[in-house]
Amino acid sequence: MATLGFIEYADSSPEVRAVYDDIMRTRNTDWINNFWKALAHDPASLRRTWQSVKEIMAPGALDPLAKEMSYLAVSASNQCGYCIASHTAAARKAGMTDSMLSELMAVVGMANESNRLASGYQVEIDEQFKPR
Amino acid sequence: MATLGFIEYADSSPEVRAVYDDIMRTRNTDWINNFWKALAHDPASLRRTWQSVKEIMAPGALDPLAKEMSYLAVSASNQCGYCIASHTAAARKAGMTDSMLSELMAVVGMANESNRLASGYQVEIDEQFKPR
Amino acid sequence: MATLGFIEYADSSPEVRAVYDDIMRTRNTDWINNFWKALAHDPASLRRTWQSVKEIMAPGALDPLAKEMSYLAVSASNQCGYCIASHTAAARKAGMTDSMLSELMAVVGMANESNRLASGYQVEIDEQFKPR
Amino acid sequence: MATLGFIEYADSSPEVRAVYDDIMRTRNTDWINNFWKALAHDPASLRRTWQSVKEIMAPGALDPLAKEMSYLAVSASNQCGYCIASHTAAARKAGMTDSMLSELMAVVGMANESNRLASGYQVEIDEQFKPR
Amino acid sequence: MATLGFIEYADSSPEVRAVYDDIMRTRNTDWINNFWKALAHDPASLRRTWQSVKEIMAPGALDPLAKEMSYLAVSASNQCGYCIASHTAAARKAGMTDSMLSELMAVVGMANESNRLASGYQVEIDEQFKPR
Amino acid sequence: MATLGFIEYADSSPEVRAVYDDIMRTRNTDWINNFWKALAHDPASLRRTWQSVKEIMAPGALDPLAKEMSYLAVSASNQCGYCIASHTAAARKAGMTDSMLSELMAVVGMANESNRLASGYQVEIDEQFKPR
Repeated sequence: MATLGFIEYADSSPEVRAVYDDIMRTRNTDWINNFWKALAHDPASLRRTWQSVKEIMAPGALDPLAKEMSYLAVSASNQCGYCIASHTAAARKAGMTDSMLSELMAVVGMANESNRLASGYQVEIDEQFKPR
Repeated sequence: MATLGFIEYADSSPEVRAVYDDIMRTRNTDWINNFWKALAHDPASLRRTWQSVKEIMAPGALDPLAKEMSYLAVSASNQCGYCIASHTAAARKAGMTDSMLSELMAVVGMANESNRLASGYQVEIDEQFKPR
Repeated sequence: MATLGFIEYADSSPEVRAVYDDIMRTRNTDWINNFWKALAHDPASLRRTWQSVKEIMAPGALDPLAKEMSYLAVSASNQCGYCIASHTAAARKAGMTDSMLSELMAVVGMANESNRLASGYQVEIDEQFKPR
Repeated sequence: MATLGFIEYADSSPEVRAVYDDIMRTRNTDWINNFWKALAHDPASLRRTWQSVKEIMAPGALDPLAKEMSYLAVSASNQCGYCIASHTAAARKAGMTDSMLSELMAVVGMANESNRLASGYQVEIDEQFKPR
Repeated sequence: MATLGFIEYADSSPEVRAVYDDIMRTRNTDWINNFWKALAHDPASLRRTWQSVKEIMAPGALDPLAKEMSYLAVSASNQCGYCIASHTAAARKAGMTDSMLSELMAVVGMANESNRLASGYQVEIDEQFKPR
Repeated sequence: MATLGFIEYADSSPEVRAVYDDIMRTRNTDWINNFWKALAHDPASLRRTWQSVKEIMAPGALDPLAKEMSYLAVSASNQCGYCIASHTAAARKAGMTDSMLSELMAVVGMANESNRLASGYQVEIDEQFKPR
C-alpha cells in the first residue's frame, strides 16, 4: 500500500482535514489521491508540500498546462511510476491531448539521449552559452 | 575540449558540412556549437541525431517554446551542465523570459522532490490513475 | 521472480551456504532475503558483495542506525523499489521510528529539489566551499 | 556565474533582505552563499525554498548532524557538484568528522551498487518487506 | 497497460504496419513487443525510433552482443524495469550466457559505486585523463 | 582538489602503499590516479574498493575490453565527469578505437532515450520477457 499506510478523510485530524479540503477545493475534485494520504502521517510535511505545490503550480508567467507538462516531463525522465500516472492525469485535465503527450515524450527521450552524448563526449560549454 | 576534439566547418567533409549547413539554416544562426562539432567524428551519428532533433523540435501540437522549455526541464533534472547552458540559450531565443525560467525551475525542483516522496513512501498508484 | 531465479538454502552449494549462514548470524535472522538468493548464481559476487556490505554497515564512526538511514535515503533518492522496501525494514530494526522515517523522507525530497535548483540555475561553487 | 547572476545583499530588495537576514541569523553566519543569491531573482522561490529548508533541517526526531549527513548522502548520490561542496561544509559545521565522512561515502557507494544489482537482476520484493 | 494502450498488428495503419514488418524481419521474430505497440499511436515517433535503433544496433565496430550488453548495462543502471526485461532477452538471443550476465551486473554495480565515490569526494580529473 | 586532499605515494603508510603497489603492478603503470589518492584517507575503503575493482575487472566470461566499455557506458549514462575521463582512458588502453567509442556512445544515448519512452508511456512488460 504505502510504508505507513493511508490516512483516509474520515479518520483525519482537523489539521490534516484542512489540507485535504484545500486540495479538493483548489483542484475541483471530490477525492484525495494516495500521495497525500501517505504523507498525512507527517502533518507538517503534508501541509508544507501542499503549500509548495499549490503555489508553484498556480498560473503565473507559465500557464497551468505548461507547468503540468513540465512536471510530467521530469517525472518521465526520473521514471517515477506513481508520478507519471498521476501527472499524466493532471496534465490531461489541464488540456493535454494525445498528440501533445506523444510530442512531449519525444522531447523527453531526445533530451535524455543528447544529455548523455554531451556528457559522454566530454563536450566543453561554448563561450556563447556561458552565463555572464 | 571533448574526447575526440572538434571538427570545424573549414575542416569538415562534404557529408558533415551538409549537416552543419542545415543546422545553421534551420536555426537561423551563423555558427555551430560544440555538441555537433564533437559528434561530427561519427558522421552517421551526427546526421541521425540532427535529423531526430530537427523533427522532434519542429512546431507541432506543441509550440517551439513549450518544447525548448521541456528540454531544459529534463536537462536541469538530469544535471547536464552542457545541456542546461545550451538549452537555456535556446529557450530564451524561443521566447522564455526570466520569470518563465524561474517558474520552470520551481516546477523541476518540486517534481524532483515529490518523485522521491512518492517512491520513498512506496505509494501505490490510485485506480483512477491507471491506464486502461 | 528474478532473472536467474533464486537459490534456496536447501539447494545451495557449500560456498553459498557459508555466506548464507554468515548473513543470518550477523543479522540475527533465520531467513535469507531474495536479493542474496538472486545473487547466489554468481558465488563470487555473492561473497564479495556480502563482505563489503558487512564491513561497511558495521558500527564505526557512524552507528548502525545512521548507516541504515543513509542507505535508505540513497535508495529512496534512486527510486529502487526493492531497496526501499528492504532497507525500510532494516532501518526500523535498527531503531528508526515513524517520525524519523518521515523526517528522513523530507530531507531526501528537499535535497533532490535543491540539487536541481543549484544545477538548473548553473550556480558556481563559493570559494568558501571549495576543498583546499 | 549563474544563469541570472547573483543578487548581493547591498542590492537586495527589502523582501529579499529579510530572507537573507533570517538565513544568517538561523545559521549563525555573516555571509550568504551563491545558491540563495541565484534564487533571489525570484523572491517567491527564495522565500518558499528557505522556509522549507529551515523547517526540514531544524532539530526534530533526527538531530541536525543526521539530517545534514543524509542531505550530503543524497547530493553525492545525485552527483550535484555545488550541493556536495556546500553540504560537506554544512555537515562538518554540524559535527561530521573525516571518519564519518568516509564511512558515509562508503554507504552511499554501496547503496548505489546494490540498488543496481537488485534492479538489474529483477529481484522481486520479499513478502516480509512489503508494507501492510 | 500503457498510457495510450497498444496498437495491434491487425488494427494497424499501413504506415505502422510497414514498421512492424521491418521490425519482425530485422529481428527474425513473429511478434511485436509492447514498446512498439505503445509508441505506434505516434507513427512519426515509431518510425524515427525504430530507424535509430535499427541503425545503432546493427553490426559495426562493435558486434551485436557487445551492443546489446551495453544497452542492458545502461538500462540496469537506470533501473528501467521494462528495458531490463526486454534487453535481457535481446542480449541472451545475441549470445549472452548466465556467466556473462553476472559479470556484466558486477561491472554495472561497481561503476555505480565508484561514480559516487569520485563525485562525493570531489575528485579532480588527472591531467593525464583530460581530452586534448 | 578533493574533499580530504590526496595522499601521495611518498607520504603513504605501509598499508596504503601496499595497495598503491598492487594497483601499479596490476595495471602495468607507474603512477596512481587521483581517485585512489582521494580514497586513501580511509585505508579500509581503499583496500576494499581496489580488491572489488581488481576482481570484477579481471578477464572472465567477458574480456577486459567488454568490461571497460560497459564501465564507460554506465559512467557516461550517469554523467560522472571524473569517471568518463578515467574510463575513456582505460577502455582505450584495453583496445577501444575511436569508432568503437562512437558506437558505444550511440548505444548509451539510445538506451537513455528508449528507457524514458518505455517508462513515460507506462509500458507493461510482455509475458515473453518476464523471468520465470
